[in-house]
Amino acid sequence: MEFTASQIASFIDGQIIGDESTVITGVSPIENGESGHLSFIAQDRFSHFLDTSKCSVIIVSEKLIDKDNYNPTLIVVKDAYLSFQILMNLYQEMQGRKEGIETGSSIHDTAVIGEKVYIGAFTYVSEKAKIGEGSQIYPHVYIGKGVKIGKNCKIDSGARIYDYCIIGDNCVIHSNTVVGGDGFGFQHTAEGFKKIPQLGNVIIEDDVEIGSNCSIDRATIGSTIIGKGTKIDNLIQIAHNVKIGQNNVIAAQAGIAGSTTIGDWNQIGGQVGVVGHIKIGNQVKIQAQSGVNSNVSDRDTLYGSPAINYNDYLRNYVHFRNFTEIVRRINNLEDTSKDKTNE
Amino acid sequence: MEFTASQIASFIDGQIIGDESTVITGVSPIENGESGHLSFIAQDRFSHFLDTSKCSVIIVSEKLIDKDNYNPTLIVVKDAYLSFQILMNLYQEMQGRKEGIETGSSIHDTAVIGEKVYIGAFTYVSEKAKIGEGSQIYPHVYIGKGVKIGKNCKIDSGARIYDYCIIGDNCVIHSNTVVGGDGFGFQHTAEGFKKIPQLGNVIIEDDVEIGSNCSIDRATIGSTIIGKGTKIDNLIQIAHNVKIGQNNVIAAQAGIAGSTTIGDWNQIGGQVGVVGHIKIGNQVKIQAQSGVNSNVSDRDTLYGSPAINYNDYLRNYVHFRNFTEIVRRINNLEDTSKDKTNE
Amino acid sequence: MEFTASQIASFIDGQIIGDESTVITGVSPIENGESGHLSFIAQDRFSHFLDTSKCSVIIVSEKLIDKDNYNPTLIVVKDAYLSFQILMNLYQEMQGRKEGIETGSSIHDTAVIGEKVYIGAFTYVSEKAKIGEGSQIYPHVYIGKGVKIGKNCKIDSGARIYDYCIIGDNCVIHSNTVVGGDGFGFQHTAEGFKKIPQLGNVIIEDDVEIGSNCSIDRATIGSTIIGKGTKIDNLIQIAHNVKIGQNNVIAAQAGIAGSTTIGDWNQIGGQVGVVGHIKIGNQVKIQAQSGVNSNVSDRDTLYGSPAINYNDYLRNYVHFRNFTEIVRRINNLEDTSKDKTNE
Repeated sequence: MEFTASQIASFIDGQIIGDESTVITGVSPIENGESGHLSFIAQDRFSHFLDTSKCSVIIVSEKLIDKDNYNPTLIVVKDAYLSFQILMNLYQEMQGRKEGIETGSSIHDTAVIGEKVYIGAFTYVSEKAKIGEGSQIYPHVYIGKGVKIGKNCKIDSGARIYDYCIIGDNCVIHSNTVVGGDGFGFQHTAEGFKKIPQLGNVIIEDDVEIGSNCSIDRATIGSTIIGKGTKIDNLIQIAHNVKIGQNNVIAAQAGIAGSTTIGDWNQIGGQVGVVGHIKIGNQVKIQAQSGVNSNVSDRDTLYGSPAINYNDYLRNYVHFRNFTEIVRRINNLEDTSKDKTNE
Repeated sequence: MEFTASQIASFIDGQIIGDESTVITGVSPIENGESGHLSFIAQDRFSHFLDTSKCSVIIVSEKLIDKDNYNPTLIVVKDAYLSFQILMNLYQEMQGRKEGIETGSSIHDTAVIGEKVYIGAFTYVSEKAKIGEGSQIYPHVYIGKGVKIGKNCKIDSGARIYDYCIIGDNCVIHSNTVVGGDGFGFQHTAEGFKKIPQLGNVIIEDDVEIGSNCSIDRATIGSTIIGKGTKIDNLIQIAHNVKIGQNNVIAAQAGIAGSTTIGDWNQIGGQVGVVGHIKIGNQVKIQAQSGVNSNVSDRDTLYGSPAINYNDYLRNYVHFRNFTEIVRRINNLEDTSKDKTNE
Repeated sequence: MEFTASQIASFIDGQIIGDESTVITGVSPIENGESGHLSFIAQDRFSHFLDTSKCSVIIVSEKLIDKDNYNPTLIVVKDAYLSFQILMNLYQEMQGRKEGIETGSSIHDTAVIGEKVYIGAFTYVSEKAKIGEGSQIYPHVYIGKGVKIGKNCKIDSGARIYDYCIIGDNCVIHSNTVVGGDGFGFQHTAEGFKKIPQLGNVIIEDDVEIGSNCSIDRATIGSTIIGKGTKIDNLIQIAHNVKIGQNNVIAAQAGIAGSTTIGDWNQIGGQVGVVGHIKIGNQVKIQAQSGVNSNVSDRDTLYGSPAINYNDYLRNYVHFRNFTEIVRRINNLEDTSKDKTNE
């Protein structure tokens, strides 16, 4: 990364105050600015950094400017937060997608590889797998038989995509996530547990992002489904035959047990557990660490294990925190009552 | 997968109603049948699908047949669920085990590889490791020094088996699971924590299945043990020196802390935490998300954090849900008591 | 491992009772001694094993010796626990660091590899990465662009270190841990969630150990930081922009949400969740499974979800366990009160 203030200003249509030839080589948060770095100020409460920051170039919202001349070079725009986001997206695109098949990958003759695909060294592509145009498969990825990956996906190093799973367009799957491992299904017998074959697959629709170290199990029969636009954080368990709708956000270390159905636009907090075979509606919010064990209606907000209404939980928890005092009050009432009875 | 109805009927000794030459190429759950697919109906509540399913062939329990002629081709058996399981197992076996050493694997000269073993590309087998007859080691697996793997095991892509660990026969270890990483042991000193060498190993007995992304730590000295027939789901932590008995089922994201001993035939729910240095008996059930912090007797059922008797927890939790109302009742009692005192 | 009793005695300056030529080939915990193995006894309650253990050689604290002649060969020292630790550390060092670049690794021309480095087969080192003297990078590791790894580190098989992350000296990163995956940042829009580029990095200071299957996300801008001497167990989530100080111990399956700051010498239990954007002081203890949702002062001890003072939680939980009885007492009080009102 190396840009001049005037280059940056041209990307985001900003006005320069100061030296337009100032060069930046990195980006800092404004609280920890470094010389030679770019940052931004969009809120009044950070505007004191306009004078004190060590950053060399700062993008700033025009409403925060009240003099002619500052220590760092400023780039003045209408909304500094928005301009900074645009800039970061541009930068990420400029870094360029990787392209080409690296030496040392292992690709089956019957696999179909689209144009402008990147396949890293030590990646293994099994028979009849298809990888769509522009997708980037980093090193050490395992792609099973008959897997289909759409266009412009990014599959990070060490991800495993098992046989016959299907991934849509524009998906991101981070490192060491396993898509399509066997569901956890065993039949109880007197001699022990007998494995029930897991013959279904996983379908991941377009625009899904899945974090690192997740386990998304294949269905027993049929499909485990992650709907369009859903975003899944790290270390998450999605069991066999779960169906997740569109545009959900699921935070780290949550787990969804088998055959549960989840609608659209839900927010599921970190370390939440959801039991199997239930139905969660739409626009539901589930507080971190909650345990959901029954169906959930649209727009409910839940907390606790087992989870109940969020406000009820908080209200009851206030009493839990006072429990020792409450029991003291009951003791007093009993004492008073005894006194009365004996009087 | 491509079979005719008559081939399938011959595998499971069924009677055909309809066209015995109907071809199926896949399997569907009955609720989401697809043309060209096979499914099964074993329960009365699904029998309406006999007429409406899009599936081309349906295996059906004989008691559900009440006419001569149906839309799909039927295969009539005594117990459709059982026959379907038999069929799925047959199918999985027919798919054939992989065999042979793929180009691009790295196998030490002193490693001993049994007959009919499969070793995938990019798998690394260290010195003096032994892999038993018929075992399948997928690509990207790391096998440390002196590791012993039994017969007919399946080790999935990206699993890591560290030095001197021992795995029995017929075990399945899914992708990205780490067996034999260092236990978490440090000595507190004024300058910081000093690593305690972890010189033991992990012993996994016969017929064990371990899901993906699990961490099974090696013992400090001696062995961490997973007993025969125990089944472990995904993303599970088993700390150093834990001993787990036979035929346990442990659900996803549970964690067992160091040196704890667990008996046989226990069921441990998802996201359960068990503290270190305790003893859990046999046939215990621990509800999801519970936190177990003391010894557990045979056949106990537990819930809560810290975990108590399951029914007690549920009963008390009903009161917790009514806590605001309960406090209101106490307020009333105090008001009444005050009135009486003042009257 | 093969040593005589006299070799061992010379390492730890001990006195031999018995046959100094006894050979040991392994180490056992004293409760499960094996013939041909070494163990130790430092506490009176284990001293009966001096006569009954199957171990061939036992290191023993001098205060526990009360006769001239024992079944196993003894090595008598001042503090057997300490001497055993010294021995185990010696042993681990004697096993020798690996050195050299294995065939089948992929190292970019512009990468800078220090002296006495080990790089295993199938490890991928990207452009401009630097690996310090004496570091050992096991097989199947992914090292991104511009990554810097210090001296004498050990990076285990399948770890992923993403672009521009920095790792100090003497660090250990276990298998399948992901350092520098994208933080979980999305902007809500009416059409779905739009990815916010994650352009920062992760900085891991000296003497840090990170267990297996952890996810340490890169900062949005700036750095996610793990401070000197901090030890992190398995399956742990550290979100973007988290700053962790020195000498913390974090147990398995804990998760720290985005931008939270943690001081020094804290102990965080297993499966703990900490929300984002809060500040945890120093020498704090957080009990397993707790959920921390607000700032924590130095030396606090917490428990519960949401977490409160540890002793308060335990006291209140005693009442929770008696809740059914407590409600019965309230019913009685109400009955008595009604009686009085009606009398």
